Amino acid sequence: MIKYSKTDLAALDMITRLTLVNSITGYKPATLIGTVSKTGLTNLAIISSVVHLGSDPALLGFVMRPFVGERHTMENILETGFYTINHIHRDIAENAHFTSADFPRAHSEFEKCALTPQYLNDFAAPFVAESHIKIGLSLAEKIDIKLNGTTLIIGQVEYIYMDDTYFDPNHGLDLNRAGTICISGLDSYHEVNKFASFPYARLEALPNF
Amino acid sequence: MIKYSKTDLAALDMITRLTLVNSITGYKPATLIGTVSKTGLTNLAIISSVVHLGSDPALLGFVMRPFVGERHTMENILETGFYTINHIHRDIAENAHFTSADFPRAHSEFEKCALTPQYLNDFAAPFVAESHIKIGLSLAEKIDIKLNGTTLIIGQVEYIYMDDTYFDPNHGLDLNRAGTICISGLDSYHEVNKFASFPYARLEALPNF
Repeated sequence: MIKYSKTDLAALDMITRLTLVNSITGYKPATLIGTVSKTGLTNLAIISSVVHLGSDPALLGFVMRPFVGERHTMENILETGFYTINHIHRDIAENAHFTSADFPRAHSEFEKCALTPQYLNDFAAPFVAESHIKIGLSLAEKIDIKLNGTTLIIGQVEYIYMDDTYFDPNHGLDLNRAGTICISGLDSYHEVNKFASFPYARLEALPNF
Repeated sequence: MIKYSKTDLAALDMITRLTLVNSITGYKPATLIGTVSKTGLTNLAIISSVVHLGSDPALLGFVMRPFVGERHTMENILETGFYTINHIHRDIAENAHFTSADFPRAHSEFEKCALTPQYLNDFAAPFVAESHIKIGLSLAEKIDIKLNGTTLIIGQVEYIYMDDTYFDPNHGLDLNRAGTICISGLDSYHEVNKFASFPYARLEALPNF
């Protein structure tokens, strides 16, 4: 077993530290955030920090770094109040990955990365047509994390679009069937296979460990 | 394709809504949070909301719901200022799942779920001996999310412990090799297999989509 202390981490070169620390949280959800500016310029950003915050109302969060690539996403969300979260599957993983290049504002990542903007039900922000599970959200709160300049964007779910074969009333969405993938670190993409579901944990029905 | 609107979600029975909304963010990291009270009572809680917030300093967040089961974890973190995040692998998935039962404070989930508290390097909070990747953190900030009473706990990484064969300098930790698993919804556990790593995205080296 090896140990990295806080001091060891600080002494690493920047790339090694970024690579290591971005991988220690475990597997991360692979999603694309779709937005559009008031003037109609679309933007698409790969994000691996989406997190469930509540079910009633349905609230999801994601973290924005204080860096260049994601600024268009944040500006568009603040301008319009709406955005989409779209699951990534294997066939669009490479397209999704390259949305993280530093495209100038006038160039839409949709076009440059060969993904299709899709407007559904008059929702203000574009979904990704190729995605199998698509969520439309309204901005609910923006929390600035002063410790390091990141921002937690919280949205309320307005719409969920998906193939109805994905919905398993016992376990929620069947993400294996939808082909949803996950991410580790900054560059690695993974397929996922369920091996177990366990019953709701009750004191009076614990397994004999 | 089916559509759930905000109104449709609100009209679902509670269990179906919980099951659905907990699964829409995609795959979630499977981790155990280890803590101890000032009086020495250990606590262990399965958490699927760990998120990367920054690498320099290394900051990780996780979300606590305003409910009973996790209150001991929060109290212990606030009392001592320290906690651990431990990756879950397949052999301990069932044990980890049942830490979510509503154990009284005097009963440690470590003992009840047959997992072993491990104190390393005089770090104040217990690690999970069976875990393959273990992170020790100090509390850095607690952000109350007023929208729904949840809390974002932010910690700075003090130590990372792992087998040194997991560290791949090109891609961070090899989580497949470590056997780390992921979660969907509230009850489903998944194995993970990498299918691709893509290069850092540069405008001048985009693939021909």
